Amino acid sequence: MANLSQPEATNLAAGRNPPPEQQLHDHLDDHAFSFSPITLKKLPHLSDYLQDLQPAGSNPLDHNPFFHPSDGFYVNTSDVVLRQVACRLSPSGTIASPSHHLAYIRAGPRKQIFFDHCATRAAIVTCGGLCPGMNTVIRELVVGLWDLYGVRQIYGIKAGYRGFYSIQPIELNPKMVHNWHRRGGTVLETSRGGFDLTKIVDAIENHGFNQVYIIGGDGTMRGAVKIFEEVRRRKLKVGVTGIPKTVDNDVGIIDRSFGFQTAVEMAEQAIHAAHVEAESAVNGIGLVKLMGRSTGHIALHATLSSRDVDCCLIPETEFYLEGKGGLLEFLEQRLKERGHAVVVVAEGAGQDLIPRTTAQKEERDESGNMVFLDVGAWLKTELKKWWDREHPHELFTVKYIDPTYMIRAVPANATDNLYCTLVAHSAIHGLMAGYTGFVTGPINGNHAYIPLADVAQAKNEVNIKDHKWEWVRSITNQPDFVKSKQNSV
Amino acid sequence: MANLSQPEATNLAAGRNPPPEQQLHDHLDDHAFSFSPITLKKLPHLSDYLQDLQPAGSNPLDHNPFFHPSDGFYVNTSDVVLRQVACRLSPSGTIASPSHHLAYIRAGPRKQIFFDHCATRAAIVTCGGLCPGMNTVIRELVVGLWDLYGVRQIYGIKAGYRGFYSIQPIELNPKMVHNWHRRGGTVLETSRGGFDLTKIVDAIENHGFNQVYIIGGDGTMRGAVKIFEEVRRRKLKVGVTGIPKTVDNDVGIIDRSFGFQTAVEMAEQAIHAAHVEAESAVNGIGLVKLMGRSTGHIALHATLSSRDVDCCLIPETEFYLEGKGGLLEFLEQRLKERGHAVVVVAEGAGQDLIPRTTAQKEERDESGNMVFLDVGAWLKTELKKWWDREHPHELFTVKYIDPTYMIRAVPANATDNLYCTLVAHSAIHGLMAGYTGFVTGPINGNHAYIPLADVAQAKNEVNIKDHKWEWVRSITNQPDFVKSKQNSV
Amino acid sequence: MANLSQPEATNLAAGRNPPPEQQLHDHLDDHAFSFSPITLKKLPHLSDYLQDLQPAGSNPLDHNPFFHPSDGFYVNTSDVVLRQVACRLSPSGTIASPSHHLAYIRAGPRKQIFFDHCATRAAIVTCGGLCPGMNTVIRELVVGLWDLYGVRQIYGIKAGYRGFYSIQPIELNPKMVHNWHRRGGTVLETSRGGFDLTKIVDAIENHGFNQVYIIGGDGTMRGAVKIFEEVRRRKLKVGVTGIPKTVDNDVGIIDRSFGFQTAVEMAEQAIHAAHVEAESAVNGIGLVKLMGRSTGHIALHATLSSRDVDCCLIPETEFYLEGKGGLLEFLEQRLKERGHAVVVVAEGAGQDLIPRTTAQKEERDESGNMVFLDVGAWLKTELKKWWDREHPHELFTVKYIDPTYMIRAVPANATDNLYCTLVAHSAIHGLMAGYTGFVTGPINGNHAYIPLADVAQAKNEVNIKDHKWEWVRSITNQPDFVKSKQNSV
Amino acid sequence: MANLSQPEATNLAAGRNPPPEQQLHDHLDDHAFSFSPITLKKLPHLSDYLQDLQPAGSNPLDHNPFFHPSDGFYVNTSDVVLRQVACRLSPSGTIASPSHHLAYIRAGPRKQIFFDHCATRAAIVTCGGLCPGMNTVIRELVVGLWDLYGVRQIYGIKAGYRGFYSIQPIELNPKMVHNWHRRGGTVLETSRGGFDLTKIVDAIENHGFNQVYIIGGDGTMRGAVKIFEEVRRRKLKVGVTGIPKTVDNDVGIIDRSFGFQTAVEMAEQAIHAAHVEAESAVNGIGLVKLMGRSTGHIALHATLSSRDVDCCLIPETEFYLEGKGGLLEFLEQRLKERGHAVVVVAEGAGQDLIPRTTAQKEERDESGNMVFLDVGAWLKTELKKWWDREHPHELFTVKYIDPTYMIRAVPANATDNLYCTLVAHSAIHGLMAGYTGFVTGPINGNHAYIPLADVAQAKNEVNIKDHKWEWVRSITNQPDFVKSKQNSV
Repeated sequence: MANLSQPEATNLAAGRNPPPEQQLHDHLDDHAFSFSPITLKKLPHLSDYLQDLQPAGSNPLDHNPFFHPSDGFYVNTSDVVLRQVACRLSPSGTIASPSHHLAYIRAGPRKQIFFDHCATRAAIVTCGGLCPGMNTVIRELVVGLWDLYGVRQIYGIKAGYRGFYSIQPIELNPKMVHNWHRRGGTVLETSRGGFDLTKIVDAIENHGFNQVYIIGGDGTMRGAVKIFEEVRRRKLKVGVTGIPKTVDNDVGIIDRSFGFQTAVEMAEQAIHAAHVEAESAVNGIGLVKLMGRSTGHIALHATLSSRDVDCCLIPETEFYLEGKGGLLEFLEQRLKERGHAVVVVAEGAGQDLIPRTTAQKEERDESGNMVFLDVGAWLKTELKKWWDREHPHELFTVKYIDPTYMIRAVPANATDNLYCTLVAHSAIHGLMAGYTGFVTGPINGNHAYIPLADVAQAKNEVNIKDHKWEWVRSITNQPDFVKSKQNSV
Repeated sequence: MANLSQPEATNLAAGRNPPPEQQLHDHLDDHAFSFSPITLKKLPHLSDYLQDLQPAGSNPLDHNPFFHPSDGFYVNTSDVVLRQVACRLSPSGTIASPSHHLAYIRAGPRKQIFFDHCATRAAIVTCGGLCPGMNTVIRELVVGLWDLYGVRQIYGIKAGYRGFYSIQPIELNPKMVHNWHRRGGTVLETSRGGFDLTKIVDAIENHGFNQVYIIGGDGTMRGAVKIFEEVRRRKLKVGVTGIPKTVDNDVGIIDRSFGFQTAVEMAEQAIHAAHVEAESAVNGIGLVKLMGRSTGHIALHATLSSRDVDCCLIPETEFYLEGKGGLLEFLEQRLKERGHAVVVVAEGAGQDLIPRTTAQKEERDESGNMVFLDVGAWLKTELKKWWDREHPHELFTVKYIDPTYMIRAVPANATDNLYCTLVAHSAIHGLMAGYTGFVTGPINGNHAYIPLADVAQAKNEVNIKDHKWEWVRSITNQPDFVKSKQNSV
Repeated sequence: MANLSQPEATNLAAGRNPPPEQQLHDHLDDHAFSFSPITLKKLPHLSDYLQDLQPAGSNPLDHNPFFHPSDGFYVNTSDVVLRQVACRLSPSGTIASPSHHLAYIRAGPRKQIFFDHCATRAAIVTCGGLCPGMNTVIRELVVGLWDLYGVRQIYGIKAGYRGFYSIQPIELNPKMVHNWHRRGGTVLETSRGGFDLTKIVDAIENHGFNQVYIIGGDGTMRGAVKIFEEVRRRKLKVGVTGIPKTVDNDVGIIDRSFGFQTAVEMAEQAIHAAHVEAESAVNGIGLVKLMGRSTGHIALHATLSSRDVDCCLIPETEFYLEGKGGLLEFLEQRLKERGHAVVVVAEGAGQDLIPRTTAQKEERDESGNMVFLDVGAWLKTELKKWWDREHPHELFTVKYIDPTYMIRAVPANATDNLYCTLVAHSAIHGLMAGYTGFVTGPINGNHAYIPLADVAQAKNEVNIKDHKWEWVRSITNQPDFVKSKQNSV
Repeated sequence: MANLSQPEATNLAAGRNPPPEQQLHDHLDDHAFSFSPITLKKLPHLSDYLQDLQPAGSNPLDHNPFFHPSDGFYVNTSDVVLRQVACRLSPSGTIASPSHHLAYIRAGPRKQIFFDHCATRAAIVTCGGLCPGMNTVIRELVVGLWDLYGVRQIYGIKAGYRGFYSIQPIELNPKMVHNWHRRGGTVLETSRGGFDLTKIVDAIENHGFNQVYIIGGDGTMRGAVKIFEEVRRRKLKVGVTGIPKTVDNDVGIIDRSFGFQTAVEMAEQAIHAAHVEAESAVNGIGLVKLMGRSTGHIALHATLSSRDVDCCLIPETEFYLEGKGGLLEFLEQRLKERGHAVVVVAEGAGQDLIPRTTAQKEERDESGNMVFLDVGAWLKTELKKWWDREHPHELFTVKYIDPTYMIRAVPANATDNLYCTLVAHSAIHGLMAGYTGFVTGPINGNHAYIPLADVAQAKNEVNIKDHKWEWVRSITNQPDFVKSKQNSV
């Protein structure tokens, strides 16, 4: 290593061993690393099961009166996005980890397309809960199909999956959707459940849709996989694509979904309000419940952004109230030090701690999972009981804020709006190119196409061993809720 | 390729050739790709020139009463971040492009550190123009040094580089900076110029600083390189790190700098106002000048987020007013079609079009560059002249908005605040680990350490051949301002 | 009446009687009205019970180096503000109603003052719940006392009334409070209760305070009256003034209190979110609970501002769920017509409808009132039960938003900030002039001084017979919840 | 005076005279004041010139299925609003000033109306510059006419006055305007000028409009007077009403117009940005130009709300730069004391100070007034010249913000939206009741009807002798710019 040889030599001359880390460092040569093998994640394509499929010709963008696609404009089939960008090198000149790389097909317009603009008939559906940006995605799908590819038959399916077979689709056009990116929610309306595979695919056939854009969360994506498979079984020329919508950011593989940054922004405001309430009271506690059933991303990000949080509780870690190292001991100390404290809890945290009635134990939601109890309300009660017990004559205040529906319903901010534009255009380009059964999303900042089935199964949990979580811990100095042996005895 | 063999066989049996794109696709095997060679970007380290440097011991985070670093907590010296994630595969099982990969040292806490908390004496300085998030970075540096590493001697240098030698440093502590992340601007004050290398390094020596955190733009980074080199020449045990601050997003290698997302958010509001003004008038034009001297990132992103823009002009592309394919012809058409139009222009665009007086031709700014003229004011005048000439009896309105100082002065939004936290902590960890002459920033979403000299030279221009720009074009349908031969004859 | 004589003559000539309303109108002569008698609301003054009280001299504003008070600057003792501005004239040339007018002393600086700036020792206390603008009032009291009158001994009492006797006062100065108007809550902290008259007035004596500024709601004002009376009984030269803080706007006589406009602004956002949730669902109901224990002003104003509300329920009117003309029938109809509905309910509405357990029936709050139950949660449950019963197989969604603590905790908007400035300055001028036992607030837009005792008793309920409420009704077309006889039989 | 008799007696017994102010105070008896004479401001009525006019029957609100107007619902013809609420009493038991009271007809629904809903044909027009809330007013006029009175023929006139005779009116209905209150600007478009009386009244006749709602500033109101007079001359059954739109708040008699509070809110943000820029620089000056051609209300209110302003310059006062007591001397001192300063200047201030070219001296705007020059740009240049001259070697920065078009284009905030609702409904009720040639607006908080001609002439200037301006002065401690004799010699 040229630029380090001098000091190294000196080190050796001085008869001292370099420190162990430094040693490795010095042996990492600048040029000699070779990669682990790469697996390309192939995508389903209509031509996989439609033998007679013919391309519909070259991309109409070629004939756009306004812009002339430059050389690099069309994405090549062999353009990929690498998933693992953080690697560990080994002194032997190879990559120590990961042992295996994944590559995904890059999203973008293709030179050759498989749908004629006159024959294209697109359906757009939104499922599940609200998320900032849904209307922007719908708008961009409509405008993109219309302006880029000249498609004129674009339909909105109302009220989620059940809308395919129970409600007449509504025709969409650019004029109609013009201002939708400024509106929260989904103009198409949404619902949970209502997934009836046969009825849905029958409806797709009957309405003559040949492009289906499905916007929804992980459950919706699992439904989309089934639709894609049934469409393939029936050998229909129907492209099916999923656009992940997860305000919780719990969908895996992709960097994040739209709406997440907006949600964090709003969550920060709720935390700020809780902080003001706590600060303005004597022994005041501000308690904020944030979205996140299986993951604590919003709680984590809002905590890092806000800096006013004393303790952040997420589903990925356990916590306990009583005893040494418990939440109550910690809060006792904080109130003594600072006179107030702010606790953020993700809705999925502490579910095992809340006592359930027999009925609640048996209750299941539509997906068969145990129903969630309100951890915020429970915690508020527990905190009050604790203080009354321990400090019966001292003032104490808990202000509990549940901003969920004020967060979900806002329009997307600029960052998320941009995401929505890119993801909608990518989805259109992908279906036009004949790909199907795929999802569009950013991987390390580059939009890529990912097999629907992969996304439907992938989870994105907070890695409590990595740095973001440690950063939270370093900011809050909250306990790690690891019961020591002495304590548990 | 297992999952494609069936259709492929059928294709062959049918005696048809697969379409050309598909052909390549089919030959891209799933597992067999090998990488191009990787170059590791080594970092300067204090031990490079300080022979007797001894580690100060293990990281104090080990002894933190609250959290016990898990196995994966400390970043290993051999942990790297890959820069090129979008690649092109070749049918021969290799990576066709890029031919050469770059890897950067991953940012994060190190197990072994080279500064004792009692002996550490840190200086923080902010230079150049305002950018949302500056105060957050300062705050996080102070809190991070104090809480993570137990440093108690932390100083703010006032008024930029000149403050090192002309103003007494002010002592900083967590209580003092507690609410700074909610304030725009920089409490430390900033200025341009004032770079006197000898005086600055003398001051660093005299004040006994051994960690210097320099927050500023590309010019500031070039100064930081010189400080690092002079410090090394004098063989001082002083770590020097740069934190890029560029609201324009014109610094290269890193994904983006803090403040950019906030700026785009604010810029979108200005565009929205211009749109309202234009829509509410007869033949109304809304004209918005956005920041971006050498790059049009803010203009581009705000255009994509806003969707109300009819034409976006950036420094990376030329434009012209008169004649076929010119701006005036385009606006004429838009006003006819829609009755109004919105034009966004980056401050660095069209500088060659504006007539300059002899004095203006000779005027140079502090860095020796030709002084920028106000493209917005010029364009407003030209538009009025044009309309008066062409349509003397018709109503016409141009409303010109320059939101620059309302954009720069706001506090960072949640997304940018999070960035500030991560970049500040990374910078601290890096200096503590003995690295010097480096910059911290995200590469493909992972914070990494980059040699200062590299960042000082790298530019981040809008690639007008890539997809984001084409997306702008597809949204605005604006002309490409390429004069055809027929036209120019 | 000159300008109507012509048509009148014609009318008579035509032998037709003018319509009855017009008749009266025509008889209302332009110049001849005389007023009902006016009662001046006198204020307590220190000189009422302090025989030896001497003025401290002329107002120091006279000697201000920057501005020279103009002739009209000082408010004269005989300057008053009329309370009744909406009157009914009678054809006989008098005022038919009100039969009796009230006039209040106008607020503002007096030429002669009774406190020397060196001897003035002011105490400021905040009591009760949060309200946007509390910090601004504190800030303006501090800055106003300091800058206008040269007072240097200004103290904050922490944690409400109990702070007088249990916590050491903190010294305040302009530098310290500089940015407080940008912060929600109250830096002085607040609490309910803790009112111990003897201890409080003892503390006032012991600390040597001679000006006491008390910021709080109606309960706090009743306490302030007692303090004023005890101070008078002890013949202390201590001025006592109250600054009404009522986010609900339930304090009478004054036009409104600070924080109210900000609260309406935030409440409108919550309603907007509820509307988005409702619109985006199938048979979606958005339910928003807003502050307002005894009055529905916030609910009413936010409904008028928002325009998305289908039904607004306030404490001043009764409502019922079942049967003809009930809420459920109304919602059934709205869901049929529009597919969604938004209900706003003030927290004090419908308390008599919610079933109470025996314990709840006996529970009393600190003031001895029956404890309020959560009308929002109750309504949500009732709506769900109703739908399950009536439409068991149809989709239905209720999203319940309780934005209370996100509303209270924000900083005041510009309108409220201005109010805070004016009210704080008026309070200072009043105490300086020797007035005591008074409250400051706007009456018909003019700041006036009102006897504390009057304000402590006055309520400000929504007049459900006046126009604002009818406007709500005309916007929502909600039922009037008057059970007809047929129905009740 | 019962409650003061005791101390008074004591005073007399002690042989001392009460202080002079107190003396008067004591002589102001509680009950004995009688009012000055009251003048009722009569309104024009269609029956003034239409002899055969018959009422169309009782108000359709009587038959509203949802609400039953209560007794007090209908406003009586003899209900008035007093204009002068701040009075000075005299010891003789009368009102010393004003010597003369004005009363205006109270706005609101009348029992008897003169327009049948089937025959009503309404036209709405917006003229002049943008102002937050214009779309809300339009929306509420449409919804109010439709829902309250059953009117189905409602038309929007596009592009201001000229739209009457040059563009086809567009039909409006509640569905169409549903979301307009969330949009800035005016969907109907607006323009200045284009007033051609004959053409306009001809168009009104030809289109069969019988209710005309004119939204605009003082110039527009003067046009509305002429339209009303011409309509009366032609003896048309056409009601004409004006709704004042003045973001500057320069229209007299009414308390304020819509959009003003929103404008102040936005102006405060601009001042805040300027403050951040100034604070973050060495010798930084933030300069903000705010709307206000003839009045400084926005500048004054934003200064009071913001509290960061060092000097506020408005058209109602003169100022000068050089010499003792001048702006430059003041800024010099502020920069020394605080290191930065913020200057707010209304656009109409200092017009006499700016040097004009001969052409500029002769230039007149459409109304024949001298054209305004940009006082902000001029001041920025002057400040730079001054500093270069006086402190050539010291850093200095002026950041100039002109937020005009970002202020005008935002949607109205909650306070202003409510105003728009009330004013629109009042206008409808007034025209329906047969009144014409009137304006609607709040007087001392109560909406009233005011003769159009009165409003068209009234100005609302900042009273620089009253308290609001003195409050500004006391907050900024700025000079009074009164050149003393010594200075001018």
